[in-house]
Amino acid sequence: MSVDRSLSQALNATVEGLRQASAEQAVATFTARTELAGGLQTKASIRQFDLVVDEPQALGGTDQGPNPVELVLAALGTCQEIVYAAYAAVLGIPLDGVHIKVRGTLDPRGLFGVAEVAPGFLEVFYDVEIASPAPEADIVRLREIVDAHCPVLDILRRAQTTRSTLALNNRLLTSAY
Amino acid sequence: MSVDRSLSQALNATVEGLRQASAEQAVATFTARTELAGGLQTKASIRQFDLVVDEPQALGGTDQGPNPVELVLAALGTCQEIVYAAYAAVLGIPLDGVHIKVRGTLDPRGLFGVAEVAPGFLEVFYDVEIASPAPEADIVRLREIVDAHCPVLDILRRAQTTRSTLALNNRLLTSAY
Repeated sequence: MSVDRSLSQALNATVEGLRQASAEQAVATFTARTELAGGLQTKASIRQFDLVVDEPQALGGTDQGPNPVELVLAALGTCQEIVYAAYAAVLGIPLDGVHIKVRGTLDPRGLFGVAEVAPGFLEVFYDVEIASPAPEADIVRLREIVDAHCPVLDILRRAQTTRSTLALNNRLLTSAY
Repeated sequence: MSVDRSLSQALNATVEGLRQASAEQAVATFTARTELAGGLQTKASIRQFDLVVDEPQALGGTDQGPNPVELVLAALGTCQEIVYAAYAAVLGIPLDGVHIKVRGTLDPRGLFGVAEVAPGFLEVFYDVEIASPAPEADIVRLREIVDAHCPVLDILRRAQTTRSTLALNNRLLTSAY
């Protein structure tokens, strides 16, 4: 794999479109729908893609799919990969491969209300392995650019604003936002 | 679906185990591995489960799978579902169904460095629809418990600690943590 010219052309067109866009025009909305399938097993639908999400048996599930926090780790790794690929293409840095291992530590006593600890991650670690003939300085600079622009890394590092509604038997119990 | 007795038994066993555990014994590590597959397409491996993650064509990809921020939304919806199912079983609250729609707004100009906006979500919305013969007060209380204990909701709402390493051609460029 050398510099990906067709990818850089596609991305340059995307960037040019975004430069012309107002904030309102630029903002995109992403959506996922989920439903409980029995026990702790769930199904997520993202556009045309379906995912089974479950818990391992040690946490009360039947292990028919990754669990939600594993999905978050996969989201971080794949987001990093995509942002590496995109900026490398645009900057003309050749990449022969990118492999990432993501780990998250979590104390399940938080989820189960057994101890006063946060239910989310204690820490998230990601190890990036790059194969490239580019000079080390280019790869170090690429990493700085990637970490400053990676959406899922920002989602993890910066507290996100969340809002919700609750409906019971098709009757809204809370006002909508 | 009424109260799930076998689930509540499994969960009670898990909770009992966690009560006996020290912090060190309780902490679990979750892992995902990812690799770039060409263009912006990536593959994530979570234990025995493989996922293709890609970007839609408008963002330079080939749309062979959900994108990373969509995975985060699916993680939130499925995590909420699982925590609803778990606490309903333990508390003896019957659930006939849980459906959740999760939306996230994001300005892609942050990712592409075209405007000084955060690359992550502007806002995340999740709409929970429950079907249940339980009294409204029980469902409202269940929601409070779920939102206080849902790992992925905590991951989104609370800034997470992240650490990373970078290796180039099998040589570590940064000290390990």
